[in-house]
Amino acid sequence: MDASRDKPLVTLVVGSDSDLPVIGEAARTLEAFGIGFELFIASAHRSPERVREIVRSAEAKGTAVIIAAAGLSAHLPGAISSLTTLPVIGVPVKSGPLNGVDALYSIVQMPPGVPVATVGIDAAVNAAILAVEILAAGGGSGVDAGVLRARLAEHRRQMAESVAKKDAELHSAGRTAPERAGR
Amino acid sequence: MDASRDKPLVTLVVGSDSDLPVIGEAARTLEAFGIGFELFIASAHRSPERVREIVRSAEAKGTAVIIAAAGLSAHLPGAISSLTTLPVIGVPVKSGPLNGVDALYSIVQMPPGVPVATVGIDAAVNAAILAVEILAAGGGSGVDAGVLRARLAEHRRQMAESVAKKDAELHSAGRTAPERAGR
Amino acid sequence: MDASRDKPLVTLVVGSDSDLPVIGEAARTLEAFGIGFELFIASAHRSPERVREIVRSAEAKGTAVIIAAAGLSAHLPGAISSLTTLPVIGVPVKSGPLNGVDALYSIVQMPPGVPVATVGIDAAVNAAILAVEILAAGGGSGVDAGVLRARLAEHRRQMAESVAKKDAELHSAGRTAPERAGR
Amino acid sequence: MDASRDKPLVTLVVGSDSDLPVIGEAARTLEAFGIGFELFIASAHRSPERVREIVRSAEAKGTAVIIAAAGLSAHLPGAISSLTTLPVIGVPVKSGPLNGVDALYSIVQMPPGVPVATVGIDAAVNAAILAVEILAAGGGSGVDAGVLRARLAEHRRQMAESVAKKDAELHSAGRTAPERAGR
Amino acid sequence: MDASRDKPLVTLVVGSDSDLPVIGEAARTLEAFGIGFELFIASAHRSPERVREIVRSAEAKGTAVIIAAAGLSAHLPGAISSLTTLPVIGVPVKSGPLNGVDALYSIVQMPPGVPVATVGIDAAVNAAILAVEILAAGGGSGVDAGVLRARLAEHRRQMAESVAKKDAELHSAGRTAPERAGR
Amino acid sequence: MDASRDKPLVTLVVGSDSDLPVIGEAARTLEAFGIGFELFIASAHRSPERVREIVRSAEAKGTAVIIAAAGLSAHLPGAISSLTTLPVIGVPVKSGPLNGVDALYSIVQMPPGVPVATVGIDAAVNAAILAVEILAAGGGSGVDAGVLRARLAEHRRQMAESVAKKDAELHSAGRTAPERAGR
Amino acid sequence: MDASRDKPLVTLVVGSDSDLPVIGEAARTLEAFGIGFELFIASAHRSPERVREIVRSAEAKGTAVIIAAAGLSAHLPGAISSLTTLPVIGVPVKSGPLNGVDALYSIVQMPPGVPVATVGIDAAVNAAILAVEILAAGGGSGVDAGVLRARLAEHRRQMAESVAKKDAELHSAGRTAPERAGR
Amino acid sequence: MDASRDKPLVTLVVGSDSDLPVIGEAARTLEAFGIGFELFIASAHRSPERVREIVRSAEAKGTAVIIAAAGLSAHLPGAISSLTTLPVIGVPVKSGPLNGVDALYSIVQMPPGVPVATVGIDAAVNAAILAVEILAAGGGSGVDAGVLRARLAEHRRQMAESVAKKDAELHSAGRTAPERAGR
Repeated sequence: MDASRDKPLVTLVVGSDSDLPVIGEAARTLEAFGIGFELFIASAHRSPERVREIVRSAEAKGTAVIIAAAGLSAHLPGAISSLTTLPVIGVPVKSGPLNGVDALYSIVQMPPGVPVATVGIDAAVNAAILAVEILAAGGGSGVDAGVLRARLAEHRRQMAESVAKKDAELHSAGRTAPERAGR
Repeated sequence: MDASRDKPLVTLVVGSDSDLPVIGEAARTLEAFGIGFELFIASAHRSPERVREIVRSAEAKGTAVIIAAAGLSAHLPGAISSLTTLPVIGVPVKSGPLNGVDALYSIVQMPPGVPVATVGIDAAVNAAILAVEILAAGGGSGVDAGVLRARLAEHRRQMAESVAKKDAELHSAGRTAPERAGR
Repeated sequence: MDASRDKPLVTLVVGSDSDLPVIGEAARTLEAFGIGFELFIASAHRSPERVREIVRSAEAKGTAVIIAAAGLSAHLPGAISSLTTLPVIGVPVKSGPLNGVDALYSIVQMPPGVPVATVGIDAAVNAAILAVEILAAGGGSGVDAGVLRARLAEHRRQMAESVAKKDAELHSAGRTAPERAGR
Repeated sequence: MDASRDKPLVTLVVGSDSDLPVIGEAARTLEAFGIGFELFIASAHRSPERVREIVRSAEAKGTAVIIAAAGLSAHLPGAISSLTTLPVIGVPVKSGPLNGVDALYSIVQMPPGVPVATVGIDAAVNAAILAVEILAAGGGSGVDAGVLRARLAEHRRQMAESVAKKDAELHSAGRTAPERAGR
Repeated sequence: MDASRDKPLVTLVVGSDSDLPVIGEAARTLEAFGIGFELFIASAHRSPERVREIVRSAEAKGTAVIIAAAGLSAHLPGAISSLTTLPVIGVPVKSGPLNGVDALYSIVQMPPGVPVATVGIDAAVNAAILAVEILAAGGGSGVDAGVLRARLAEHRRQMAESVAKKDAELHSAGRTAPERAGR
Repeated sequence: MDASRDKPLVTLVVGSDSDLPVIGEAARTLEAFGIGFELFIASAHRSPERVREIVRSAEAKGTAVIIAAAGLSAHLPGAISSLTTLPVIGVPVKSGPLNGVDALYSIVQMPPGVPVATVGIDAAVNAAILAVEILAAGGGSGVDAGVLRARLAEHRRQMAESVAKKDAELHSAGRTAPERAGR
Repeated sequence: MDASRDKPLVTLVVGSDSDLPVIGEAARTLEAFGIGFELFIASAHRSPERVREIVRSAEAKGTAVIIAAAGLSAHLPGAISSLTTLPVIGVPVKSGPLNGVDALYSIVQMPPGVPVATVGIDAAVNAAILAVEILAAGGGSGVDAGVLRARLAEHRRQMAESVAKKDAELHSAGRTAPERAGR
Repeated sequence: MDASRDKPLVTLVVGSDSDLPVIGEAARTLEAFGIGFELFIASAHRSPERVREIVRSAEAKGTAVIIAAAGLSAHLPGAISSLTTLPVIGVPVKSGPLNGVDALYSIVQMPPGVPVATVGIDAAVNAAILAVEILAAGGGSGVDAGVLRARLAEHRRQMAESVAKKDAELHSAGRTAPERAGR
């Protein structure tokens, strides 16, 4: 799967550098899964031509999934979806006085025919995992789907283990120790 | 001002024919003010190229204001604003389970630099009057601003008169007639 | 692509027969794209064991994507996602006094590690198209990705054409005919 | 009632160690009422099998009430309710950009047949008191209901006394001393 | 368990006869489980003294659980909780322009020390099942907890069966029949 | 108290004749309490001069309380409050897609120094009763406060009686008749 | 008007000492208007009997208006209104994760017949001014209504003057000095 | 275009000096575009007469656009619109516990006939750019519309360039450097 590290299977786009902290979590998650990606800053409203170029280029390079994060009226994911039939994952960013509810509504309530796969507000990690799941489900683009599925299963196992470990630590401190809970 | 009837000073755009009943109120209001307009159906997501053509053509023809109405994620007004520096008026349409709150947030919460002049949900009449006010304020494009201002003032006068008339009708029925109020 | 008609590439699940009208739109859309699917009624809360069986069986049969629709607290999509690493698409259903906002929040706000690809409230058509996009992106599972991409592109073309046709009909009736707009 | 201290009459479950500060208030309240409890970390989405084990074990040990706290899509209380007919109390946790409204809707809007007794956002103290009220109402499981009722009554009396004491302190400072009020 | 039919183990209270259709579902559910109940109309705001009498009388008769349903500012469940340490279940009623969100917030956001076990908006069936679960958990008051638990388990089984039956009917019509889905 | 019938102690104002059904309930309630009133239609936005005249005239005639009802952005009550130091009661009207939440926020969230006594959405009856309570509290303006207080007490008594009567009717049909409840 | 300073014309009640900072603003405002008041801490849910005593005592002492502030489910103002026909002013307190929206809905959405005059969230100053307006409108209870009206008018004049003064300061710094605006 | 610097083409009004930081951004943006403006503090509720004077004076001086910013019930933009047929741009200010949603609803939901061109919460920069777009569209009032259009186009170009520059900086650090993204 070294190939997939070199090939940008996932294209990440944010509309503003203020959204980089959010998309950075998606980038790190893809890295952890060994998935090659490209990251761009381009705005649906301030540089719409650049957004078109990025989408055209991503299609040409064989990108399989696009992840776009945006806040406020958050048109970027939908604008990208209108330009491609690749699956587009949208991450509403918590910014401004409405705490991301505006971005969530704007991203998820797309009209029939032009979907955006929306994840939770600021949930860039889930966007990345969903992208991996999509790559694993398909298995095209030179991806070894079996390897990805194994990594996803291992990730689930680790999550369960992590929860179990915290539970065990809690219990090793004595179940009747409420004064320790919540400290 | 016959000229202004023939020249499309205002360009109206809706993303779907289901939005025609709303935009129709704007059209009729512009007609009443003697303002020429053009009306198009074009979708930010389903026919983005067509939206660009309409905006380029509107600019070439000398349109002064663009009104766009859309529901759900409602990117149309913002998408148009990203393509032109003409003033763009956005009308959030009440459609779908969120009753237009999604469209309102999506239209009004535009990022810095790309404004949309937003009116109330389904408030197409106000969009049209705002367009007339903008034409009257500027007075360019062969518009006789003085005539428009007079029409706007007359419209305000008629509104006040209409309210006064209803008040008078109510009072002619006797002020102590609560059983008539609310019938 | 006849094979894909016979093989359930997509598994549809609703928690209640009252959600069938919504999921039915997804089913018809998949049919139009020539994608085989299976449809189940199973409740995350009333028949959790059955949900597990369906997911296990779907994985065994080679399903590539699962679509789940649910209203109110709407745990079904997330419960399915917790049981599989296949991509899970969630459709919040408009039911009850909160008009689907409860279902939207419950489906989209999943914790890190267990994503649900959420579409709009009652947006089952978009769920189906997103599933086709995922199949087309991957190209595994015996799917001819090229054919699916062509169908998706054709669908986009038809949408644009449909918008253009309605626009043309509007214009053939005269652009200065506001009394016709909105009728 | 020493027995009840040793027997886990109430089972507390949180989906993440980040929810421990909230559930800790429930634990301390149960401790104050002399109710034995067990506390677990287990996630509806990341360790669903573990959740099932905890519920089965709690039933076997004679737990009478389960309290589950969760944030975001907050499926844990409902998932537990789907696995048992013991009364399940759900505590929506304020976490993430929606301040717990997502968790509240997800926990309280359960479908018919699988109830969750929901308390306020972060209201773990009330969850614990409700659990005590349930134990006192029933009186089974070796609980001395009379003792519990007396403790609940005493708790109410203390609350009223505490309010009265603060009122008295306020008044001892002079009723016409607004400059002291609000300091 | 004939005794429990004759003894009002559950007291139902609504603030207005307009809430009877909602509480009626709770009454029918309790009837189905063989639980005796009493039903009262009394308003926290219009007949607060009567509410106190009902609570005092219910305690004297040995009621184990109180269910109160109310709309708008919906103080009834909280007012009852302030008068007793019996578990109080609150049902927010969908009435008025806010669709029950006002009632939900008012009922669930009780201050520390005075809990209300809140169920979903109009979810009177769940209120009744929760009451049965509480009775079954405790087993006091002459209730045969084992019988109640068996009935609750049977109810769960029937729900699962009902879902399975609808699923089977769907499948007997052919899984590839999307035109039938949603009809 | 005949005098009070002839003198407009309360001035009612609505911004539109579409709000008459709501304000009509206030008028009928004042009539029932024997309070003289005047009713006007005048709009804060369409006839602001007329609003000023009505307020000046009301003050001159000795009006003690003003009730204003409005929907949407609902500036009327606040505009009136800015023109007088008489107590102003605001009634948010449920109109438009936001169901009166816009009007509620606009009326109640007044800046410091210019209060509006806000009642519930469409709650014109409560506006009228509040006006009577204000008249009874003061007792100026030739009002016989004692008589008004007696009428308010009688009204409360009748409300309690009405609730009790409905409760009695319910009980005369048998307490164990759940099939009758909710019909 | 010295008398009014000594007599508690207004009774202030908060449900918790955490609400004292809010009600303190009302107290200081009443003080500034020379209105005597009493301030109590009493909880609708934790000390309901004490609330009744306070209301009975206030009526006996000749209180003309009651102001109650509360957060969360915020039943206190409505509970007081149910016990008296004096005008009750409710102040929703911003506390907890819903920022006072819960308290606002709970206070303002009272059922027909039992009104609460609601002011904005945390708007205790407006509650006090409204109380003064009510006292001035009535003029009973030994209040010199003319004096109060003069003070209210003076307060309005000072507010306008304060705004004008800030405007003048701004302008003395030069109108074309945007770099000073907003600093 | 020096003339336009000296003539107040745009009038800015805020209701309180606490809104100066928001309107200051509009002032600086106008300055950057070389547009003369005047800035006033005047309150719709505390100094309504002053608001009227400012509007009359602005009309007399030839102002083409008015920008008004306000928080809470935020009547100022609508009150100004009711006094003039100049285009009025409203900026909802984020203040108070509702984070500006109250101001947004109050400003945008104006009744038919009296529009306010609403921009996003705290979006004063967009208000200023919209004002420039309106001036450029009209070209009256001695404004050289061509110059303004060129400045607007240049502003758009700079925005796109700024986005592109940030994108380039990101890429110069290596596309596979997720550990740098989001830092």
